[in-house]
Amino acid sequence: MSQIDHSHRADASTWVDGADHHPDFPVQNLPLGVFAPASGAARIGTAIGDYILDLSAMAAQGHLPQAVAPALRRPTLNPLFALPASARRGLRHALFERLTGEDGYALLHPHLHRAAHCAMHLPFQVGDYTDFYTGIHHAANIGRQFRPDNPLLPNYKHIPIAYHGRASSLRVSGEPLFRPRGQIKPAADDAPRYEPCRPLDYELELGIWIAGENPRGAPVPVGDAADRIGGYCLLNDWSARDIQAWEYQPLGPFMAKNFLTSLSPWVVTQEAMAPFRLPQRARAAGDPAILPHLLHERDQAGGALAITLEAGLRTAAMRAARQPAHRLSEVGADHMYWTPAQMIAHHTSNGCNLRPGDLLGTGTISGPDRTGFGSLMEIATGGATPITLPNGEVRAFLEDGDEIIFRAKAEKPGYRSIGFGICTGVVTAAMP
Amino acid sequence: MSQIDHSHRADASTWVDGADHHPDFPVQNLPLGVFAPASGAARIGTAIGDYILDLSAMAAQGHLPQAVAPALRRPTLNPLFALPASARRGLRHALFERLTGEDGYALLHPHLHRAAHCAMHLPFQVGDYTDFYTGIHHAANIGRQFRPDNPLLPNYKHIPIAYHGRASSLRVSGEPLFRPRGQIKPAADDAPRYEPCRPLDYELELGIWIAGENPRGAPVPVGDAADRIGGYCLLNDWSARDIQAWEYQPLGPFMAKNFLTSLSPWVVTQEAMAPFRLPQRARAAGDPAILPHLLHERDQAGGALAITLEAGLRTAAMRAARQPAHRLSEVGADHMYWTPAQMIAHHTSNGCNLRPGDLLGTGTISGPDRTGFGSLMEIATGGATPITLPNGEVRAFLEDGDEIIFRAKAEKPGYRSIGFGICTGVVTAAMP
Repeated sequence: MSQIDHSHRADASTWVDGADHHPDFPVQNLPLGVFAPASGAARIGTAIGDYILDLSAMAAQGHLPQAVAPALRRPTLNPLFALPASARRGLRHALFERLTGEDGYALLHPHLHRAAHCAMHLPFQVGDYTDFYTGIHHAANIGRQFRPDNPLLPNYKHIPIAYHGRASSLRVSGEPLFRPRGQIKPAADDAPRYEPCRPLDYELELGIWIAGENPRGAPVPVGDAADRIGGYCLLNDWSARDIQAWEYQPLGPFMAKNFLTSLSPWVVTQEAMAPFRLPQRARAAGDPAILPHLLHERDQAGGALAITLEAGLRTAAMRAARQPAHRLSEVGADHMYWTPAQMIAHHTSNGCNLRPGDLLGTGTISGPDRTGFGSLMEIATGGATPITLPNGEVRAFLEDGDEIIFRAKAEKPGYRSIGFGICTGVVTAAMP
Repeated sequence: MSQIDHSHRADASTWVDGADHHPDFPVQNLPLGVFAPASGAARIGTAIGDYILDLSAMAAQGHLPQAVAPALRRPTLNPLFALPASARRGLRHALFERLTGEDGYALLHPHLHRAAHCAMHLPFQVGDYTDFYTGIHHAANIGRQFRPDNPLLPNYKHIPIAYHGRASSLRVSGEPLFRPRGQIKPAADDAPRYEPCRPLDYELELGIWIAGENPRGAPVPVGDAADRIGGYCLLNDWSARDIQAWEYQPLGPFMAKNFLTSLSPWVVTQEAMAPFRLPQRARAAGDPAILPHLLHERDQAGGALAITLEAGLRTAAMRAARQPAHRLSEVGADHMYWTPAQMIAHHTSNGCNLRPGDLLGTGTISGPDRTGFGSLMEIATGGATPITLPNGEVRAFLEDGDEIIFRAKAEKPGYRSIGFGICTGVVTAAMP
């Protein structure tokens, strides 16, 4: 795990206008991403307040450490996250010194762009995307709708359940979601039809970006796995529940998920997250012992994440009336039953190789009650308990025009909280 | 579907020594691949008899059509298969003319390498790998071990079942298979253990390489889907049955498969396969009607593949005694319940984008009886009916030292048959 250093000091202050009061991107954060200014190609930057600092241009001019400069001149983060974590720590410290020291202004000022004038890109070329299922309340909520007496399957508390997802349809926040069509079989019908999904849903997740590479055949010990975490983002695992219900036996979700997965564009680095750690505490007394290859003292003590996630809904009517989004839920990431290090140790335990820029989804993170449920399937109990919005609209699942907005912040007493930015998408009518 | 032209003539003959009698690579085949000569970087080539013709070098010297020359100078086939099929047809015809005409000798001879002296690479940088489940006898055989009275699930004959696989652990034929470790729970035990897989298995499949790209949100009509097939290869979906049994509910296979998937290196192109087509005939009388978005007259008439696949086993003792491989099974690819075009139409039916170099596995292809079963799980009935090899050794699943060898040929009366080369791998003891 990265150590805590002076770049996490709560009283650190930057000369960048307004950044000290920014909800997401104070100088303690320094997330990495790929952006394009109004005119210009995609390049690497860091978010600072309402600005983006162009790291590719700074590297080209020799203003950043030699260890990272070649990697910063590329249009994706993959080469930077192929380097050892020490290289990214060096970058963080160089940026921190210049953004907090008055003498940084002259050097950095020409490379600051207003974020509002930039387009964000996917930060990585993603080799493989894996979605886990670590939200134990989510697993129980979904399981309860199928098996009221036995919601959790026998393997759940022994093994971090996951499945492979689709890399080609990962998109950065803001991409519209065309309502997918698919093969759907209503229970009352004899045969399926091909038609637009009706119960369209979101799933509130964190994404974990992989750094470094293990050779195929070489598992990553759980005690070393934190070094393989490059950073974190928000992830919306949009889900077509009717397609899922018909297709998922026996090989799992496929077309119910692979039409779009939305990601927040900024990589909140493992280094920035160093202070925001918690003990693994989602396990209850009496739960099975953790197998030795998934158990490590440091991970038990601080492998969980002090992150609070929030999902909001803004319908077309709310946008027209200039009403703000309605909060659907708020939940702590410490409700994940498995830590990111355990996810990586499990994923590589058979020798599977993880590459820089691979993406792991945590699975839907839900809390123990309805205020913290991470999908409409749970909040509205599969349609049985629709919710009424402040303007009187009713929702069981997503309607065309609805926007789903995720936000998150990492917070811990004594530290300046840092945020993830936004992950958003508007549901659009199915294509003809 | 590509048209049949003079490059498929059974009596076509090349000046390349021995190629006219080669079981796999006569001049009617001209498969594409990526190879490295004894000294030199990876480049694109075509197999002709026991030789490989260096297409990258020919393109660099201006000897190949302008439409494909830049793509041929790259170290993967992705750019070539991003081009329209007409470009690859032009390449095929240019190669055919020069390999069959006497005047081609002087030009091509310097670019021929002995295949035995070259190393083969993965032909594509694979963006996404999807594994289907189109072998209806396989699905029934596996289902019968869990549900004797109801082996096929209700969705099977309506929807081409598939799941996402792992791209990072795709490897070209010859890669050794370290016996994977994983979480395994014997039925008699209370808790799982982390230990080497015991019932290690192979699965006999074809791989389908995707050409071209559909934008996200734009399904590929089944009538156009054949143009999205770049070519075919052999695929061994190595499977750890004990890991699979414990992990697969509710999200499908994950660690049971993602430690290694082996591929034959040569892409047998859609153009080469033009004559080797069959009507879709795996559907039985009384089967459900095909939904309109998966139904097309031309696909029904000729969308299935006239390919015969064969799996062989050679144990360490057989190698030591210089005995040949023992044939485990032989099966026709027309036992696939869905055609490749239907697989592509389904995969894109929700708007999912497929990119050049994406890989689809057909799923295990099994025939209706034990002589054509595509995995040991089926041949040895989950361990209940072990097989005895000619040398007296007995196998229920794979032992360390066992080599699995796949071959296949496309054949049809009136045409010179073409082959796929080999897909092989030796099981190696688990790493400590």
